[in-house]
Amino acid sequence: MDNEEVQPTRREFLSMVGAVGGAALMYQAMAMMGIAKASPYAGPIELGQAPEGTRVIILGAGLAGMVAAMELRDAGYAVEVLEYREKAGGRCWTLRSGDSYEELGGAVQQVDFAEGNYFNPGPWRIPYNHFGVLDYCSRLGVELEPFIQVNNNAYLHSTKAFDGKPVRFREINTDYRGHIAELLAKVTDQGALDEMVSEEDKALLLTSLRSFGALDEQNAYVSSTSASGRRGYERPPGGGVDGSPIPNEPIDLSTILQSNLWRNIAAGESLNTSMPMFQPRGGMDMIAQAMERNVGDLIRYRKKVTAITQDENGVSVTFEDLENGGASETVTADYCVCTIPFSILSQIEHNFSSQLSNVINSMYYASSIKVGLEFNRRFWEEDEHIYGGITYTDLPISMISYPSNDFFQKKPGVLLGAYSWGATSYQFNALPPEERVAKALEYGAQIHPQYNEEFKTGVSVAWHRVPWVLGCYGQWQDKEAQYQDAVAMDRRVVMAGEHLSYLPAWMEGAILSSLDAIKRLHDVATNG
Amino acid sequence: MDNEEVQPTRREFLSMVGAVGGAALMYQAMAMMGIAKASPYAGPIELGQAPEGTRVIILGAGLAGMVAAMELRDAGYAVEVLEYREKAGGRCWTLRSGDSYEELGGAVQQVDFAEGNYFNPGPWRIPYNHFGVLDYCSRLGVELEPFIQVNNNAYLHSTKAFDGKPVRFREINTDYRGHIAELLAKVTDQGALDEMVSEEDKALLLTSLRSFGALDEQNAYVSSTSASGRRGYERPPGGGVDGSPIPNEPIDLSTILQSNLWRNIAAGESLNTSMPMFQPRGGMDMIAQAMERNVGDLIRYRKKVTAITQDENGVSVTFEDLENGGASETVTADYCVCTIPFSILSQIEHNFSSQLSNVINSMYYASSIKVGLEFNRRFWEEDEHIYGGITYTDLPISMISYPSNDFFQKKPGVLLGAYSWGATSYQFNALPPEERVAKALEYGAQIHPQYNEEFKTGVSVAWHRVPWVLGCYGQWQDKEAQYQDAVAMDRRVVMAGEHLSYLPAWMEGAILSSLDAIKRLHDVATNG
Repeated sequence: MDNEEVQPTRREFLSMVGAVGGAALMYQAMAMMGIAKASPYAGPIELGQAPEGTRVIILGAGLAGMVAAMELRDAGYAVEVLEYREKAGGRCWTLRSGDSYEELGGAVQQVDFAEGNYFNPGPWRIPYNHFGVLDYCSRLGVELEPFIQVNNNAYLHSTKAFDGKPVRFREINTDYRGHIAELLAKVTDQGALDEMVSEEDKALLLTSLRSFGALDEQNAYVSSTSASGRRGYERPPGGGVDGSPIPNEPIDLSTILQSNLWRNIAAGESLNTSMPMFQPRGGMDMIAQAMERNVGDLIRYRKKVTAITQDENGVSVTFEDLENGGASETVTADYCVCTIPFSILSQIEHNFSSQLSNVINSMYYASSIKVGLEFNRRFWEEDEHIYGGITYTDLPISMISYPSNDFFQKKPGVLLGAYSWGATSYQFNALPPEERVAKALEYGAQIHPQYNEEFKTGVSVAWHRVPWVLGCYGQWQDKEAQYQDAVAMDRRVVMAGEHLSYLPAWMEGAILSSLDAIKRLHDVATNG
Repeated sequence: MDNEEVQPTRREFLSMVGAVGGAALMYQAMAMMGIAKASPYAGPIELGQAPEGTRVIILGAGLAGMVAAMELRDAGYAVEVLEYREKAGGRCWTLRSGDSYEELGGAVQQVDFAEGNYFNPGPWRIPYNHFGVLDYCSRLGVELEPFIQVNNNAYLHSTKAFDGKPVRFREINTDYRGHIAELLAKVTDQGALDEMVSEEDKALLLTSLRSFGALDEQNAYVSSTSASGRRGYERPPGGGVDGSPIPNEPIDLSTILQSNLWRNIAAGESLNTSMPMFQPRGGMDMIAQAMERNVGDLIRYRKKVTAITQDENGVSVTFEDLENGGASETVTADYCVCTIPFSILSQIEHNFSSQLSNVINSMYYASSIKVGLEFNRRFWEEDEHIYGGITYTDLPISMISYPSNDFFQKKPGVLLGAYSWGATSYQFNALPPEERVAKALEYGAQIHPQYNEEFKTGVSVAWHRVPWVLGCYGQWQDKEAQYQDAVAMDRRVVMAGEHLSYLPAWMEGAILSSLDAIKRLHDVATNG
């Protein structure tokens, strides 16, 4: 991508749009094109008219399946959705009081949260740049509220640093930035950058480093009110007689480097995890519920697909009807959108191409553990002034995320008490739910001793034990080599879901994958 | 402050607290003491019992005055509050449809916003570390919602850079960090840090810089998916056939340095402006209204104080009763809490000490302009995907802040269209309200051309023209020399307000000042 070549063309295009359509249209075009773009979503899909009487069967009523159902129905297709579970939403899932969940192996958890409390075992936050999710929320009337991703007052914690005590994010972040700004300023003064940076830019660089790193006039990072104004004070500014602030001492660079706590400083910088973020008011499955209200009449629940076969005339799907003692039934359609996770699909009989079959059989699903812990009071707010955000730790729980709803309420609150995957999840993977909860409690109490006194109830979802997906999200053996084989329309069947996207494990990936899949299905259906 | 000396004492103290009072108490103590403390507020004040029949007159029913009224009344004092305006709250003030506001000079503005929309001319956000404000909100039932201070998708704008086009915060922030991390990594490799950083730490520094700056394996900041994953892509990751991302080109360091846009990178790092922040649902004056519900029966409105005199027996306050044709009246009390801004107090007859009088006469009040602009649609969200947060600019409007309420709603929205002070406000200071609004529109349209088509109505408050304060906040001639003279109890009178704090212009400063003032007043009243 040669930036110099691309940009003039863009500007010319934008001027043209501006001349024809006015400033607002030009801005919409700019926002869509971006200079550095944040999303490929280009607004509501417009499929055009379906060929008369064309039937599409959709497998799976998760977000990918329901988006396909909505849009294909609106284009005039005759749509039927088969869903294994008794409800729609898939991994867009929320547990509330009264819910019961049985994992693989038979362990059953009864959720017993306080009124209004909930836990999202799957997706739990929506980045501002996931325009597809946001647009469906807007169109379906799902109310969104801010999700606090970045909290300067949350902790960074390592069992191997600071005697195992948590340190506020603001302290590590401010001090790391201060020290590296100071080092760079020093070597700039010493001439080390002379061959890389012009004289004029060096002066600007020094000025900018003072601002960026809270350095003093001599470009030093030292105890000062400007540093403490970011990291915290010995005595913070107040009112009256003792109002004047007293700064405190920064942590030295070596201690910070050796603590490894710098590893999470950039956690809030990625497009997918930077402010602002959002969550549906009341739980993530408000999105699933809204979609289900829209297409629920097209969904047939508790149908376990056992075979998918296609020929030149159409697609046949055979399933066990779990509402009818498992009786076998077969339905046919002209086309099929299959959103069944490959972990499940690999166990289903089908006659897909060998290329596609290879991908289905080689994709593995990441194991991941989440634990929701409810406490009698919101001690993280009341005692520690942590309102939302995430504490990162090297403990196997990996993080603690504080709720972004019901701030300041005097009522029980639910923490994400563990979100572990890969190596950090090994300590949890083999355990039954109540022991996973106990382990999350035991680890978390190293950061919040209040855990021991305030614990009320917990719930844990180990994704590799979720019967209808067997893992958290699809992982590729060789994505670069396999991806196009997997997304390509296989005669009359097209795959969709988060696993067929470059936003794996995100709802946005499922939606964008589904939109692209049905666009191609529609092209085939209309143009042959 | 010798950190090595102080810390062991603290730890010993905390262990002691833990042993006696358990983990929760230990954590409360830790939160209060902090290692790097964020607030001096130590929880609700406990004054104890007032001497029988002691009367206190409070001048001004802003936040400082109402806090004093609440707490002194609760301690048993007989409290009376005199307020110049027809309502309480002072600078904690919200304008809504139907409101009318006359500024000095006689210009009247009629506010005509859509239902539910509002504009806060004064305080507009509450830092998470303003524990005093948060505690009163909690005690008085003021519902708070997140205020989005940091928005990576908002703009940085300079008339002198990028052809005057705004650039997303995430682009400047990511690229600046990337470039300085790369420079520091290079000189580290070249040995320039050998005398400052140990070998072991140098290896850690390089690893940390890769993470901090999104550098590649060779410690270079280049076009990559890791950099674009923060700054934005040429083609962002999506789903289906074109799902794979294509990174774009960073902006070079020289361009960024010369653009001066780095100047606002650290805007979200200060304790007072870092995430999370909050706002009352419905407007900032929800705080004033809640306090007024609590102490409204003690407030006498539309009383213009003309003289304050004290002797060994008490305090006399003379006022014009604006509800009664300006008739003069005098009330007496044992003590007085005076929260009248010094800009006004300097025009009132009094017999305070010469030291205090000197401060009153020498304090000047900052001029500052705010403009609220209502637009027919929330184009910043719909066209530009900016949800809350602040765009910084070198234009005289200084910033545009996007509302943190009613996200994604299809209705008119109100922007803070200008917040100017000091040199940036000179273009606004002499103008009548409608011309200030017009100027804010004209400037803002350089960033958002949609201004021209979507403008609905506007309102502007120039603080130097607000009759009851004549400025935005108190500024000291020589704070270090004068502060203790001003906060000291002057026989039977004590001053309180934001101007008597080290959090000037913040509600927290007013509250902390008031709490400290009444504690000392109570000490004098009880111990003589």
